[in-house]
Amino acid sequence: MTEVDLLIQIRFNKRIFITPKRIDLLRMIKKTGSLNAASKEMSISYQKAWTMINEMNRIAPSPLVIKQRGGSGGGGAEISDYGSLILKEYSFIEKKIHEFSRQLNTELNL
Amino acid sequence: MTEVDLLIQIRFNKRIFITPKRIDLLRMIKKTGSLNAASKEMSISYQKAWTMINEMNRIAPSPLVIKQRGGSGGGGAEISDYGSLILKEYSFIEKKIHEFSRQLNTELNL
Repeated sequence: MTEVDLLIQIRFNKRIFITPKRIDLLRMIKKTGSLNAASKEMSISYQKAWTMINEMNRIAPSPLVIKQRGGSGGGGAEISDYGSLILKEYSFIEKKIHEFSRQLNTELNL
Repeated sequence: MTEVDLLIQIRFNKRIFITPKRIDLLRMIKKTGSLNAASKEMSISYQKAWTMINEMNRIAPSPLVIKQRGGSGGGGAEISDYGSLILKEYSFIEKKIHEFSRQLNTELNL
């Protein structure tokens, strides 16, 4: 079966700071309150999760995650107000494109 | 300036065989008739282009590119009928989401 997906990315000054994978990480951080737990849930290394966060925070107009490094648990991580706004708007876009994607798939000849 | 893009990917039996980058490669092959020329235009190695094509052909319900390996020019490459169909449908989707994306960007609070 052939299906078309629409993926959402967000750019600031032309540079991509949000991708579907990064949204998954942000959502997992919000859920767990910990970068360590979030990276485990995502099956990526803690270092990889750190790099993703740093990259996002660096490109975005404002940091999305506030980190507390260290401690036995690998340090806490908190979604900033700006990060919460992005998560909210991303979910809004997902809802908007859901019906559109469904309709699109019925119109294709693949 | 913050902007949202919608990216198109196509799956067959749940596995992704078309991404925006792969479409760029297919379009360049169609334009140049050569995998060598296409990879140069894309600023990727010939080997990388080969790998992308093999991956696409392997996952898709039917090969998208027919390759002629070898020769001093690095071998010719031709888009199959199925590849042409995919390119046509992809362009159709791009047109459909263009207006939708524009509208979406005016509704966001980013």
